[in-house]
Amino acid sequence: MTSNRHNQAEARPGIGNDTVLDAARDCVLAVGVRRTTLTDVARRAGVSRMTLYRRWPDVRTLVGDLMTREWVAVATSIPHSAGDRPVAGNTVEPCSVREQLVDSLVSGVRAFRAHPLFRKIVEVDPELLLPYVLDRLGASQEAFLEIFETALRNGHTDGSIRQDHTVRQARTLLLVVQSFALSLHTMTSDADPDLGAEAFDRELRHILERTLSP
Amino acid sequence: MTSNRHNQAEARPGIGNDTVLDAARDCVLAVGVRRTTLTDVARRAGVSRMTLYRRWPDVRTLVGDLMTREWVAVATSIPHSAGDRPVAGNTVEPCSVREQLVDSLVSGVRAFRAHPLFRKIVEVDPELLLPYVLDRLGASQEAFLEIFETALRNGHTDGSIRQDHTVRQARTLLLVVQSFALSLHTMTSDADPDLGAEAFDRELRHILERTLSP
Repeated sequence: MTSNRHNQAEARPGIGNDTVLDAARDCVLAVGVRRTTLTDVARRAGVSRMTLYRRWPDVRTLVGDLMTREWVAVATSIPHSAGDRPVAGNTVEPCSVREQLVDSLVSGVRAFRAHPLFRKIVEVDPELLLPYVLDRLGASQEAFLEIFETALRNGHTDGSIRQDHTVRQARTLLLVVQSFALSLHTMTSDADPDLGAEAFDRELRHILERTLSP
Repeated sequence: MTSNRHNQAEARPGIGNDTVLDAARDCVLAVGVRRTTLTDVARRAGVSRMTLYRRWPDVRTLVGDLMTREWVAVATSIPHSAGDRPVAGNTVEPCSVREQLVDSLVSGVRAFRAHPLFRKIVEVDPELLLPYVLDRLGASQEAFLEIFETALRNGHTDGSIRQDHTVRQARTLLLVVQSFALSLHTMTSDADPDLGAEAFDRELRHILERTLSP
């Protein structure tokens, strides 16, 4: 998969992909995915339509790359090794890989739910998410799994995470956090603090802590 | 919610609902939800279209009742109180509410994934599932939550399940098992037994055991 993405990047040299993806993001946030056209994105990015077509055959492919960029940026806060974390004052306390991973997953899921692109897709093009819930992994999910696997291996090494089949453990983790990212909204109640998003974040933390502990 | 369902049942007296729901199930299994009409269902059930219209204003409502009946039947194996379970020979061993609940959830999720109605909807009308993933709870999910809450309260009483806010704990449980029901297919690999459905069932059992334990 890494080499696939590498090849993709090599096949799209020239003007910065980020410029085009920023333009695509602005279009999607304005009108949704289905109503975004490559012509709109080209105009907003200040490039010709042909330049865009050479890189992305259609809007779906372009938006796929945009989603991967945005979601993976949410996940990059997930640590790859044990470290220290600041506590009160200027001191730090040592922190296991598991503690860091759990912290990152809980805050990552919260950030994902609040992400403007995710909210726009849920609002106007929710059917775009369906294949990745029911049918197959998308590029963003593959990228999450790679990040999770690295963290899990480090946690196996520092002894803070239960030894298990790393790939399966990462996928299990994704099943859990994905449900809290996509479906928490169906379970919360704004009127009742016991059923607010923060209370469910504590439930997610509890699941992750207990499930990952040796 | 119980009273709502009660009122619904009262509003639909006369010929057995099960006859109509059986006919609806046969139609959906044959052609999917979108291509099923009330006329088809009436013909197959041997009742007039008007009889059906008086009870269900459209196919969506009818299929909603069908899904609730079928999914809740899958869930009825979930126990409401501690009991015994058979072991080797003719002896039984005492079994906590948590052990029974975990057993039932793992086998319930497996049965749900294999259910012909679920498989048909995933195959031809997957967009019908989307509102219940992203937006709001359906009648089946409300029914699952009631069953979970009863089991959790019994587990709080027998001391086998961690004390927590029962409604939130039930919803958290539903978020986890729902992801294993809907999305496990995206994570498994038929070619690799370490990534087969049975191996993931063990991961689900592990999550549930650890999360529900006091």
